[in-house]
Amino acid sequence: MNKKVPMDKIDFMRRAIQLSEEKMMENSGGPFGAVIVKDNKIIAEGYNQVISINDPTAHAEIVAIRKACEYLNTFQLSEAEIFCSCEPCPMCFAAIHWARIKKVYYSNTRKDAQKIGFDDNTIYEELTKNNNQRKIPSIQFLSMEGKTAFKTWEEKIDKTPY
Amino acid sequence: MNKKVPMDKIDFMRRAIQLSEEKMMENSGGPFGAVIVKDNKIIAEGYNQVISINDPTAHAEIVAIRKACEYLNTFQLSEAEIFCSCEPCPMCFAAIHWARIKKVYYSNTRKDAQKIGFDDNTIYEELTKNNNQRKIPSIQFLSMEGKTAFKTWEEKIDKTPY
Repeated sequence: MNKKVPMDKIDFMRRAIQLSEEKMMENSGGPFGAVIVKDNKIIAEGYNQVISINDPTAHAEIVAIRKACEYLNTFQLSEAEIFCSCEPCPMCFAAIHWARIKKVYYSNTRKDAQKIGFDDNTIYEELTKNNNQRKIPSIQFLSMEGKTAFKTWEEKIDKTPY
Repeated sequence: MNKKVPMDKIDFMRRAIQLSEEKMMENSGGPFGAVIVKDNKIIAEGYNQVISINDPTAHAEIVAIRKACEYLNTFQLSEAEIFCSCEPCPMCFAAIHWARIKKVYYSNTRKDAQKIGFDDNTIYEELTKNNNQRKIPSIQFLSMEGKTAFKTWEEKIDKTPY
């Protein structure tokens, strides 16, 4: 991004960074914050709470997405943007995709996170590997039995696609 | 996996598949179920709730991980395995990694999910791209300001690494 970042975007990112610092100091979790913005207003804030609430999925972005959806009473945030103090890990990037958020801004990178001991970059690398080459083995079985539910979904008339 | 799957593993997978069917029929969300097993016992179950609770992160695996951590009062499930009615999407695979689950079993594949309209495979592809080639743009700025929190984490004496 060039130097002409609009002042409001700078403010949103500074808030994400502020959360990353303040909440880490309160021992909430790792140094990560995020805010979700719609119509140029922050509609949800999140910070890492992995340690404090015993939830490995409680990354800043996931927390912020859940709050934003609750606030807007929807499961899609297609008009929103997210400001993250660090480049989202694959869990959070995929969550951003599922939530249909249209743009991501970030400050630190996955490599910066790796340097201070976090697995973000490793998980990105693992995801590009075949299932049988990953550190966590993934094994398929009962493939025919699982298909019934998928066929039912396909034919379900009153389903809500997402 | 060869044909000699132990009966208990078959039972665990059948429970995940059963959840995927039953809860979809109750309009909870998409046709996805998961169970987490420790010491040969199911300690948590999950099913997709994206639609019913307006939470795009409420995939079967995420729900099951959160419940298992609550049950064991921990943020790491390093002695556990997860049985999923479908190969985990990148969000769920990364969550499994963060939770330190040691093995994944699945029935349907990401390609099967794609065929019935889900983005799992697309997101896997997006994650391998550079940030500037993705459908959802990711833009870095204020990189210096974010680094302070990371430096503080590095030097923090009473931190809990995860």
